[in-house]
This record gives sequence, structure tokens and C-alpha cells, in this order.
Amino acid sequence: MSLYEYKLQTAPQNFYNVTSKVKEAVAKSNIKNGICVVFSPHTTAGITINENADPDVVRDMLLGLSRAYPDSKDFMHAEGNSTAHLKASAMGSSATVIINDGKLLLGIWQGIYFCEFDGPRTRRFLVKVIGE
Amino acid sequence: MSLYEYKLQTAPQNFYNVTSKVKEAVAKSNIKNGICVVFSPHTTAGITINENADPDVVRDMLLGLSRAYPDSKDFMHAEGNSTAHLKASAMGSSATVIINDGKLLLGIWQGIYFCEFDGPRTRRFLVKVIGE
Amino acid sequence: MSLYEYKLQTAPQNFYNVTSKVKEAVAKSNIKNGICVVFSPHTTAGITINENADPDVVRDMLLGLSRAYPDSKDFMHAEGNSTAHLKASAMGSSATVIINDGKLLLGIWQGIYFCEFDGPRTRRFLVKVIGE
Repeated sequence: MSLYEYKLQTAPQNFYNVTSKVKEAVAKSNIKNGICVVFSPHTTAGITINENADPDVVRDMLLGLSRAYPDSKDFMHAEGNSTAHLKASAMGSSATVIINDGKLLLGIWQGIYFCEFDGPRTRRFLVKVIGE
Repeated sequence: MSLYEYKLQTAPQNFYNVTSKVKEAVAKSNIKNGICVVFSPHTTAGITINENADPDVVRDMLLGLSRAYPDSKDFMHAEGNSTAHLKASAMGSSATVIINDGKLLLGIWQGIYFCEFDGPRTRRFLVKVIGE
Repeated sequence: MSLYEYKLQTAPQNFYNVTSKVKEAVAKSNIKNGICVVFSPHTTAGITINENADPDVVRDMLLGLSRAYPDSKDFMHAEGNSTAHLKASAMGSSATVIINDGKLLLGIWQGIYFCEFDGPRTRRFLVKVIGE
């Protein structure tokens, strides 16, 4: 069944490096070659792959996303979080990673991030492993 | 062969909730566990997953995307729809959803949207179901 | 094992049409029906699917992305390429394409692009083919 769920507690806006959890899921699956899909079941939080080293990259990405998709008095959605919906779709609801010989084929600087745009909340994400 | 195609008629710009069609494809496939890929074979229309409840979310997302990727007299593409190409890539050409026990593992507020940025047109999208 | 790697030399910023390489990988895999995942193992280069005909579309997309995610003196990442990180996540680290009867089910105007935002560099991308 190769399906795993993880929970996390989030801040108002932040990216959370979940790579170690995804590695754990792939190890548990015993699938050595294939792909895995990391999925956010939320509409104001997404998944992206980006730099795992300098935390200023995440800081700058949050700033850049807020400038690309600023809040606006013209938005009509009553919850007032349309900018978070935009950012979630801009990053995407999932990331797909290749598995080879039991390992995630990420680049040396890549980490898998859960992207919170409308916290703080208790969130979850899913990892599905598909063998070839 | 687990491959399904659907057609739709679009407005100049809008998001179309195609979740029920994707559910239908998964049911027809008889695949109970795996993933499905929803794919737009167009370059000015994409696929995204976002809120299925308040139609103002889609309205606000279309507005926010038009502000992030405004039309410009500096664009040189002769068809004049470069902003639609940008929005299509911003949303992405596909979405991947996990299937568990015959059901799409979407969050309660999530719907799968076909995103038209350069209609009105007759469009189509593909659903491919992959078992584990 | 259906996994293939390709290298390319890039300019400072450009999109490279890698569709023929992906087709080659799918042909080598001998997999006739399924999906393939095209993955960039970099954090300042992504993958997207967009128009394969008029080169002005790529030109306009690079311009539009630079306006959506402009460089800023407020960015703190020491390498000074935060805008490239943003653009890479905006396009995404991978694209998934359906394979049917040995062929990529791309639309007639679609090509698969490796998107360089921080070159010139020697880059690589991966193609993983998954049968149904």
C-alpha cells in the first residue's frame, strides 16, 4: 500500500524541510526503484523542491512570493487569504521525486519543502511510493 | 490502458472544476491504489488543485495571476497571448493525485481545476491512472 | 531500471527544448504505456512544458518571469540569485508526461523545456519511465 502520512505544526508563513520524512517513507516502502509523490491536501499550503542549505533562500522566496502575489483589497474571498491560495498553486500541490536503488535522486542542494502560506495550523502531507 | 480523455468548452478566462471527471476515470480504470495524472495538452491552459467551495477563490486567483503576469507591449510573440503562456506554466501542465482504496486522496476543500487563460476554445484534458 | 540522464551547457538564462531527448529515453525504455517524469536536480533551474514553435514565447516568458520575481536589494541570500530560486520553483522541478503506445502524449504545440535561470553552467536532467 506504500502510503504514508505525516503531520506538522506550522507558523503563519514558512517552508518546512520534510526530506528526512520522505526518505523514511521510501525506506519503509521497501521499493528500490520508481517514483514518490509528496502531496499537500490543503489549498493554502503547497510542496516545492528548493535549496536545503542557506535558510535565507527560503526567507527570500517567501518575500518574493508575497511581492508576486500581494494581498489586495480587490480580492473578494471572505476568508481574506486569497494570496495564500495563489502562492499554494504557484508552488503546486505536489512534488514527484525519482527513486533509484532505494535512494531519492535529489540534487545535492535540493530539499523537499512543505510550504505554509496561511498558518499557524496543524497540517499534514502524504507520501505515495510507486515501484516500476 | 487506463487512459481517459475529456473535452470542455471554455470562456476567455476561467477555472473549471473537473474533479468529478477525474473520479469517473479512476472508477472506470478499476485501479484501487496508485496515482493519477491529469494533463492539459495545451500551452495556454494548465491544471491546478485549489479550493472547491467559494467561487471567489477562483475569481481572486485569476485576478492575482493577471497582476503577477500582466500583458506587456514589450512582449514579441505575434499571437499576443504571452501572458496566457506564462500563467499556464505558473499553474503547470499537470496535477498528480494519490489513489487509495479506489478514492482520490484530495483534501476536503480541494478540487482539480482545468485553467483556461486564452479562450474561448474547445479544450481537452487527459487522465492517466497508474496502479502500484 | 528505465532511468536516463542527459547533460547540457547553458546560457545565463534560457529555456532548452529537451523533448527529443525525452522521446529517446522513452524509446530506449521499451515501455509502451505509462508515464515519464523529467526532473531537474538543480535549485535554480526547472522544467516546464510550453510552446515549441515561436521562440518569442520563451523570450517573453523569461521577461515575464523576471517581472513577476524581480531581483531585490532586500534579498539576503549571499549568492545573490534568489530570483533564480523563485523562478525555478515557479516552473517546478519536474514535468510528468503520459506515454501511450510508445509515444509521449504531448499536445501539438507542446515541448518540454529545461529552464536555466542562473547560468552559464553544465547542467543535467533525469528521465524516469514508469510502465503501467
